[in-house]
Amino acid sequence: MGFEEMWAALLPVGRDPVTGGYHRFAWTPPELECRAWFLSEARRRDLDVEHDANGNMFAWWLPDGGSRDAFPAEGAVVTGSHLDSVPGGGAFDGPLGVVSAFAAVDRLRERGARPRRPIGIAVFAEEEGARFGVACLGSRLLTGAIDPARARALTDGDGHTFAEVLHNAGLDPGAIGPDEDLLGRIGCFVELHVEQGRALREPVGVASSIIPHGRWRFDFGGEGDHAGTTRLADRRDPMLPFAGMVIAAREAAERNGTVATVGKVRVVPGGVNAIASSVTAWLDARGPDDAAVRRTVKEVDEAARVAARPHRVSVDLAEESYTEIVDFNAALRDRIAGTLGGPPVLPTGAGHDAGVLAARVPAAMLFVRNPTGVSHSPAEFAEPADCLAGVEALTAVLDDLACG
Amino acid sequence: MGFEEMWAALLPVGRDPVTGGYHRFAWTPPELECRAWFLSEARRRDLDVEHDANGNMFAWWLPDGGSRDAFPAEGAVVTGSHLDSVPGGGAFDGPLGVVSAFAAVDRLRERGARPRRPIGIAVFAEEEGARFGVACLGSRLLTGAIDPARARALTDGDGHTFAEVLHNAGLDPGAIGPDEDLLGRIGCFVELHVEQGRALREPVGVASSIIPHGRWRFDFGGEGDHAGTTRLADRRDPMLPFAGMVIAAREAAERNGTVATVGKVRVVPGGVNAIASSVTAWLDARGPDDAAVRRTVKEVDEAARVAARPHRVSVDLAEESYTEIVDFNAALRDRIAGTLGGPPVLPTGAGHDAGVLAARVPAAMLFVRNPTGVSHSPAEFAEPADCLAGVEALTAVLDDLACG
Repeated sequence: MGFEEMWAALLPVGRDPVTGGYHRFAWTPPELECRAWFLSEARRRDLDVEHDANGNMFAWWLPDGGSRDAFPAEGAVVTGSHLDSVPGGGAFDGPLGVVSAFAAVDRLRERGARPRRPIGIAVFAEEEGARFGVACLGSRLLTGAIDPARARALTDGDGHTFAEVLHNAGLDPGAIGPDEDLLGRIGCFVELHVEQGRALREPVGVASSIIPHGRWRFDFGGEGDHAGTTRLADRRDPMLPFAGMVIAAREAAERNGTVATVGKVRVVPGGVNAIASSVTAWLDARGPDDAAVRRTVKEVDEAARVAARPHRVSVDLAEESYTEIVDFNAALRDRIAGTLGGPPVLPTGAGHDAGVLAARVPAAMLFVRNPTGVSHSPAEFAEPADCLAGVEALTAVLDDLACG
Repeated sequence: MGFEEMWAALLPVGRDPVTGGYHRFAWTPPELECRAWFLSEARRRDLDVEHDANGNMFAWWLPDGGSRDAFPAEGAVVTGSHLDSVPGGGAFDGPLGVVSAFAAVDRLRERGARPRRPIGIAVFAEEEGARFGVACLGSRLLTGAIDPARARALTDGDGHTFAEVLHNAGLDPGAIGPDEDLLGRIGCFVELHVEQGRALREPVGVASSIIPHGRWRFDFGGEGDHAGTTRLADRRDPMLPFAGMVIAAREAAERNGTVATVGKVRVVPGGVNAIASSVTAWLDARGPDDAAVRRTVKEVDEAARVAARPHRVSVDLAEESYTEIVDFNAALRDRIAGTLGGPPVLPTGAGHDAGVLAARVPAAMLFVRNPTGVSHSPAEFAEPADCLAGVEALTAVLDDLACG
């Protein structure tokens, strides 16, 4: 099973036949099919599969004579990524890192390499937060970056709690949370990922940092009424301040050198001939530093309230998640850059499990070039040659870190 | 079965236990349950049930010795309304007219009245257009106001065509369209309906006209991309001109003395961390005259295009339906007003099957007071005493027109 065969096997799973976009939400059938594919690839290679309590999976290639209960003091070299997707996402975001990891293990074995330290291939759960609203949920739980009680109570679009979904997947919702034993066995984490902007001009790059980013929910509360018979002056239409908030988000981003996006909105009741009773909108904001992001959100909130007042609409703002700037471990980054002969080193505006893991273990990222920069879209793409260059780079990095 | 018992029987059908709003979309289980209720009430009264080819239902009280095949030359007096709802709608919009019709027939019978002309109780299909997007679909088909081929191709939110849904309901999609035989048997149509504004200060009023109204669909086409990694300058975000269009709609309505509402929007793909690739929004616009409504829509369209240009977003505008001003038959209206002793006579901003029927047969409407004016919302309400006053008024009108 070379890279291309593994890639082809995953390609149809959860793909919308009309748009070509992927819908692989955590623990829905397409994502479960991706998990089954992972387990089968791990078994095919005689890797030792470990399911943690948080829905993450690890496939271990242990040193000769090694066992999962006796890792060396320097810990394992873990790579991998995630298999879930945003709604209508691309094929590369997540799976590229997992497929490349198996391919890199294959290359090491073909060369007769033998790991000194265990090599792990990880799949983290709910990285996109597309189902329960909190990105990197699996790695956040593992590292203690989210309160397990809060996580259990998260609900998906159908009202199912994370606890229910875990239970139905055969996991114990009461057991989720930080796993010091597992963290202690991870010496470092190197995630390979498709680049999601246009900044990378060579096939492979190395991450310097993840810029601060977060998600905020705005609830606009008005009064549902008839679209034909309600005078303008009598309306409490939440759609109007919502529209003002969308425009304010763009303006605040321009002022503060950040990016701000409203990509999801829920209108209740959502009838053509009914004034909405409520509108819920999500703001994604990211920027070069915490202050710029905080200022952006504050300005959007203020503008939303100003826009809401004349319509007698209420505004509630809730922070769903926020991640401060992540500077990846300098020593690990420099060592990887040295192994790869001085590739471009660049920051990213995208959140990743590596960014969450970085709080607890040395972490690094390899990026594979994205010619258009498009991501979270069916148009997301990387050239096959660049993907193979990514596999080569990851092979070299694992060889250096685990076998050298 | 008095008014109250019938009302209580319908009340739980299709009601959201959390919001209290009704979800009775044409040919979905709750609406089918309402249809079954109608048939059972008709049978209980020995009325002769007729299903037309367009999904509408009629329950006929025939004169002694009369038959459905031999209506008198002056035709029947038809009343009734609809049983479907907008998403999250109120209990009164539609069902009040049907329940009141049965109650009025009961009162006439209690008084020993015998109709000279047949009395019909009609239920028209898909009045709200909540499932297939075209309001008054059943009455439009009956009267020839919509092309049957266009109607067959209409799709619901799940992609099912109207033709499929008709077929699954046991109807022949090839047979839909104008029914001259049925129209020829209808002498006049009097629809009782809850008033949907605050203009009616007495328990019962009579309609003068329906103001011009229509629905337009705006499709904004951009480019899906990653919310974190895509520079503002590289974005083609359709959410931004959509927001501009929402605000422009309110401003255009204020300028033109109309009402304009955006109550439904669809965002693709709809992920928090994804720039939308497309946004579809529906504009409902109504006003005192055709020119004012047309001007409103034109101004919104122009503003949407101006807002879209800097974002390199495409804008497509499609008219889904438009109804010019309907002046109800003056002779019928005056006769009804005389029977009721000079009730208020008022226009309405809401579309109704009576407005569609008016193009082919003398039509009129009775309104029952709505103390808050709220409609298309769980908060829609009419006082029980006002509902009973509506039944009394409808009884008197049917007595005069059919039995006098």
